[in-house]
Amino acid sequence: MKSAKHLLSVTLLSLLAACANHSEGPLLIQKQGSFAAGGTMITAPGTFNPRQPMTPNGQTYHGDHAYAFYQIPADARKLPIVMWHGAGQFSKTWETTADGREGFQNIFLRRHYGVYLIDQPRRGDAGRSMVETTIKPVPDEQLWFNQFRIGLWPRYFNGVQVAQDAQTREQFFRAMTPNTGPFDMGVVSDGVSALFDKIGPGILFTHSQGGGPGWLTAIKNDKVKAIVAFEPGSSFVFADGEVPAPIPSAFDTVQGAAVPMEQFMALTRIPILILYGDNIPEQAVDLPAQDSWRARLKMARFWRDAVNRHGGDVRLIHLPEIGIHGNTHFPMSDLNNVQIADLVAQFLKEKQLD
Amino acid sequence: MKSAKHLLSVTLLSLLAACANHSEGPLLIQKQGSFAAGGTMITAPGTFNPRQPMTPNGQTYHGDHAYAFYQIPADARKLPIVMWHGAGQFSKTWETTADGREGFQNIFLRRHYGVYLIDQPRRGDAGRSMVETTIKPVPDEQLWFNQFRIGLWPRYFNGVQVAQDAQTREQFFRAMTPNTGPFDMGVVSDGVSALFDKIGPGILFTHSQGGGPGWLTAIKNDKVKAIVAFEPGSSFVFADGEVPAPIPSAFDTVQGAAVPMEQFMALTRIPILILYGDNIPEQAVDLPAQDSWRARLKMARFWRDAVNRHGGDVRLIHLPEIGIHGNTHFPMSDLNNVQIADLVAQFLKEKQLD
Repeated sequence: MKSAKHLLSVTLLSLLAACANHSEGPLLIQKQGSFAAGGTMITAPGTFNPRQPMTPNGQTYHGDHAYAFYQIPADARKLPIVMWHGAGQFSKTWETTADGREGFQNIFLRRHYGVYLIDQPRRGDAGRSMVETTIKPVPDEQLWFNQFRIGLWPRYFNGVQVAQDAQTREQFFRAMTPNTGPFDMGVVSDGVSALFDKIGPGILFTHSQGGGPGWLTAIKNDKVKAIVAFEPGSSFVFADGEVPAPIPSAFDTVQGAAVPMEQFMALTRIPILILYGDNIPEQAVDLPAQDSWRARLKMARFWRDAVNRHGGDVRLIHLPEIGIHGNTHFPMSDLNNVQIADLVAQFLKEKQLD
Repeated sequence: MKSAKHLLSVTLLSLLAACANHSEGPLLIQKQGSFAAGGTMITAPGTFNPRQPMTPNGQTYHGDHAYAFYQIPADARKLPIVMWHGAGQFSKTWETTADGREGFQNIFLRRHYGVYLIDQPRRGDAGRSMVETTIKPVPDEQLWFNQFRIGLWPRYFNGVQVAQDAQTREQFFRAMTPNTGPFDMGVVSDGVSALFDKIGPGILFTHSQGGGPGWLTAIKNDKVKAIVAFEPGSSFVFADGEVPAPIPSAFDTVQGAAVPMEQFMALTRIPILILYGDNIPEQAVDLPAQDSWRARLKMARFWRDAVNRHGGDVRLIHLPEIGIHGNTHFPMSDLNNVQIADLVAQFLKEKQLD
């Protein structure tokens, strides 16, 4: 019985792999699972006494690891994609959208990429932090509504690529989760670098706050073979002596960070695609949310030019400039996310990463 | 092209569904995604000012929801399984085991059950809590090693169903994540009850600390059609006036909780299977970890008898009594977890839930 099944499976799988994993219908998953990567460990002084288990003496504590859930489709392409969330977010960024459509996890599985969704150290399911923190329920969602460029609360932007019903808005707000320890660029990039050591060469997708530590991860680990950065935040690394002047905005001041030239050069050796959405003004405005993105986009352009000046391969697409309108800070889950995925897939094909 | 593919797919899928999803080979997933369920919301007094986005005035905060990632296999059985973690844990309990084998997520997908993995409110990816908390990195892992009955640190129990290499131990410790708000039986059972309202009738698997709020969830929501409780912790609910005397142990005192008879009776209307593993003494011992489980198993037996006395259908299996040895507090991920899954599947079949 088992071997008959096996023969049948082998025949069917080769046929099915060709037609499954398209825009509809079932996903054929060769392998899926989860693991922790990286992190550190401390041991309390003293000797553990099993009769006093609540005292830390002699006990250990592991933390600051990344957590990943992965799926490898049948007939997978050579390089998987590691998808890294931004500030206040977790793996959900790439899962079902707030209005219930498929996110980049499913969309890229259907395109035969292995997909690793991570929670960075000190976030979500990677919650054990080596540093204490206090989490307070401070109301902040109108800040995020604006900062994520959905609109100017309570109005939505005209033509914004977001469903505007109450249930979608609720799912969107509930897709946030707090830091369980201080955000630390070194710690989170160490965690994701350790993940690449485990899985081998791959493509890194970053979102927002993940952008900055994403550059650091590629500097630390040459298994990062390409980066697609969705709306990277304020942390861009330049070579020593080449950091541009800070760019003030109505929200904050965007400052480049300096790294040794040798480290910077790692970023010239891989193809990089940067995408920014709509409703980012070119001129200063007195609205913090909009103006912060004006400053970030400006710094991102400086950065593209700096990397390319040293022989790099950075392409920055400001979506409205190529006729794609209405995207928020979450192009991977906006209503036109399949169009965005097409754009990214085209880039990966062009760079022979597919 | 598309319709040809469609025809081919339909033919192949019906064939493949019969032979895929077995103990090896690819999983055929009809649908997968994630969502938040339940929770509450507050609004800070005042009016939101987009020019002062860091002040909470007039802003909202959503929290205390559950988060779920689900997968529905092709050719799914009628009732899905909702898998609920215990203390200090998250969805990982049911995913890849610490030594890299498949957990109950994959094992039950292969058996054609839909699987919902949850992070309960204030844990992991459901991190937004309505109540403030402070998270401290206090070394405690030797406590857990003993409490989870892997051994008496640093020794493993003879014949324990756990791989004993350092990498497995590290993955096991890194599968913990803290509460991001105070643990609250009402809040977490409300979240999971809201999840059942979204998904409809299903089977609930609980682990450890999830056991107590699991009973409450079944009381709150008749869409819970059965419960399989793996090593439920100290919270058992009895009808008013029928709470047994507290059971002291070297770790703590196990106390039943009282609920109105009408609520209690909900637990007599569904089949319930309770499993406990090995290395639980029948007589009091002065080791807190072992003794705490002696007291819990004893209370679980009182509870089984109380529910069955009122016409219920509770079966309690202490695994060594049926010749299954070496199980820890995590039977769903122990080395013999396929054998445990067989036992559970047999129960579901017997109760016509499959």
